[in-house]
Amino acid sequence: MDNDILNKIKKRSQTDIENVKKKVIEIINNVKVNKDKALIEYTKKWDNPNFELCNLKVSEKDIKEAYETTPKKIIQKIKEQITLSTRFHKFQRDNIKNWERESEEGIILGEKWTPIEEAGLYIPGGKNPFPTVQQILAVAAKTAGCKRIVSCISPKGKNYEVIIAANECGIKEIYRVGGAQAIAAMTFGTETIKPVQLIAGPGNPYVTAAKILCQEKVSIDMPAGPSEAIILADDSTKNINLKTKATYCAADLLARAEHGPDSAGVLVTDSQELAELTKKEIEYQFDQLERKDYIKKSLLSYCAIIVTQELDDAIDFTNDYAPEHLEILTENPRQILNKIKNAGSVFLGLYNPVAAGDYASGINHILPTGTWANRTSAVGVWTFMKRIQYSEVSKTGLKRLQPIVDCLADIEGLDAHKKSVDIRLDDEVKK
Amino acid sequence: MDNDILNKIKKRSQTDIENVKKKVIEIINNVKVNKDKALIEYTKKWDNPNFELCNLKVSEKDIKEAYETTPKKIIQKIKEQITLSTRFHKFQRDNIKNWERESEEGIILGEKWTPIEEAGLYIPGGKNPFPTVQQILAVAAKTAGCKRIVSCISPKGKNYEVIIAANECGIKEIYRVGGAQAIAAMTFGTETIKPVQLIAGPGNPYVTAAKILCQEKVSIDMPAGPSEAIILADDSTKNINLKTKATYCAADLLARAEHGPDSAGVLVTDSQELAELTKKEIEYQFDQLERKDYIKKSLLSYCAIIVTQELDDAIDFTNDYAPEHLEILTENPRQILNKIKNAGSVFLGLYNPVAAGDYASGINHILPTGTWANRTSAVGVWTFMKRIQYSEVSKTGLKRLQPIVDCLADIEGLDAHKKSVDIRLDDEVKK
Repeated sequence: MDNDILNKIKKRSQTDIENVKKKVIEIINNVKVNKDKALIEYTKKWDNPNFELCNLKVSEKDIKEAYETTPKKIIQKIKEQITLSTRFHKFQRDNIKNWERESEEGIILGEKWTPIEEAGLYIPGGKNPFPTVQQILAVAAKTAGCKRIVSCISPKGKNYEVIIAANECGIKEIYRVGGAQAIAAMTFGTETIKPVQLIAGPGNPYVTAAKILCQEKVSIDMPAGPSEAIILADDSTKNINLKTKATYCAADLLARAEHGPDSAGVLVTDSQELAELTKKEIEYQFDQLERKDYIKKSLLSYCAIIVTQELDDAIDFTNDYAPEHLEILTENPRQILNKIKNAGSVFLGLYNPVAAGDYASGINHILPTGTWANRTSAVGVWTFMKRIQYSEVSKTGLKRLQPIVDCLADIEGLDAHKKSVDIRLDDEVKK
Repeated sequence: MDNDILNKIKKRSQTDIENVKKKVIEIINNVKVNKDKALIEYTKKWDNPNFELCNLKVSEKDIKEAYETTPKKIIQKIKEQITLSTRFHKFQRDNIKNWERESEEGIILGEKWTPIEEAGLYIPGGKNPFPTVQQILAVAAKTAGCKRIVSCISPKGKNYEVIIAANECGIKEIYRVGGAQAIAAMTFGTETIKPVQLIAGPGNPYVTAAKILCQEKVSIDMPAGPSEAIILADDSTKNINLKTKATYCAADLLARAEHGPDSAGVLVTDSQELAELTKKEIEYQFDQLERKDYIKKSLLSYCAIIVTQELDDAIDFTNDYAPEHLEILTENPRQILNKIKNAGSVFLGLYNPVAAGDYASGINHILPTGTWANRTSAVGVWTFMKRIQYSEVSKTGLKRLQPIVDCLADIEGLDAHKKSVDIRLDDEVKK
């Protein structure tokens, strides 16, 4: 493959906030000064011309209406999603443990985890509602133990499924406000929306720019960009013939491509035959899909089928790419997993398309994109917690440390630091 | 206490990057375009008029000279620091565990931790060198398993102790470049300094602004601000008389105040007597200290002695303040620790001044300031690692998930997602 094309694929469509920055700074400053008034103005202008202040907070009446008008089957499935994702996040929580150990005689060191008390969730909305995003963020924050959870949902349309997902997770503050203005409101506060300490959730480039620019005052999960997946596959045909495997590869690439014109689905394989079969399958399956426009643009921009000499080359490509999602469709997927250094979420097994994780298996699907998987992790219980480090030092312990403090505080020119140690060990003499 | 004064104390001197933002954006853009040339220009202008490109990377010869000219005792103490902080960070590493559990039949979920491969450390320099900062950041990154660690140290002065600390931690890339230009270089890369994935380390407002503004492309530990400590004390006199306790409180407040004019040391206690004794002790000890100018300014701005009705009020104040450092000088410090929700690093025991942690006990002293302890944690092994989430789903597992995916993918309008699941379960029929 041509190196320029390979670099384009590797670079993919990373969110560039440069173009929207100026506009977003203006929005942030307006919300800082005019608060609720600014939110209402923007929402009227961009989302819903009939929007009033009384619509900002979702009321008990709205929630009742959401349950009354949404088919029971959908409510049931949202509840099942929450059950499964709660299970995953409780596994995570079980693994977050306080610890304490003695380092030397009289020196005990430890850490304890506590929740971030106030968290803000951003739930994007487009043509369709996204209850799946609402539940996964809310479950993570709730399992962490956040005391106050705020959710900003799209003011376009009714969004009943999102309201149900939020309510099922016990969220009491749901606001209808989107875009950069929602991020600014949760960061700086308005008359209606009190500020939070951390904001999590995906969004368009305006939302991402606002999250980055508000980091002076608020903690965020990560900048979000277009969705992406790598499918790492070999020609092994244990329990499956190669044509069927190509069917799965094609379906999964197309699923990634339907997210938007900037999405990326990449098959990387050491099998020329699988590559060719997959290409044919993509053409065949494409015709049966609805979001042809997005898919076509995505296929022509950031999607690719890459054939490598060895499977290890495919693994190297994957680590270098640092994909948001990684499917491993090989003879021994666990062996490959051991070699994976950078990926947001990895899918092992022939019967485990990314969509199973997006919707149902319970893992978190708010993931690092655009190479960020080489430096950060999926949203999870960890996102909504922090460590408090502590130490306990006895007189014996402090005597052990005193020579180090004295010598190095001298070099660093901090004599009051030195004296705060010395005064404790000299006191029997002096007093 | 007057509410305005209390609010001023609580607010303290949080770093405001607004004033330096414009200048910092200019520096970042210059480094992006002119790379090494920009670094040399800034360093000549601000740090060292004789600086040349050949000085940028610390050479083997520089390292040899550092060891030859630094007293053996100092080298020894730096090594002891590293031994003790390695112990703490290994304890942390032992507590970071991969996990895997079955959620339902055929659905296995797990997470594995991997290091961030390339980390950049920023070591500020002022009148004095700060080897203590160098070693604590390097030990955390090294214990995490970072493959490439870059250190930017001050180009002012020789900084031999810092070079020794870096070398003892095995750092191969030490560069003499400071300020916003160092952050820009590590983020975007120059001819000499290749970019990294994460930057950690404290700095002045220019450095902090650069870290915030570069977060589009690089991950950071946290924004850094002036140092602060709360001393939470009661009048208990087990093993100590109250006057002696006041001596310790005063010494520790003064140690915080000597960091700079914006530093904050706050005693919060339910004992009027302790408050008064501490005040007198501050006056007495002040005269014996060197950095009087900083201390005086700090005492008059952000330091305070606060007397509360009950000890629980003092705890509430502390959680609300979310201090970088917290000393607990009470009868049962562990009981209080259980009630602490927000703090960077907690010091238990009468013989455990913050300086013991700053220099020697091994805990990390790069900590959240300016209320950030309510939403983030000390730098540590965690800072330099990330989680890879994974799932393994069998055909049975996927059958369990299919109805959820089908129902909710419909609502969200993603039919290719739905098909990627259905195609795997329909295949026996179709093919």
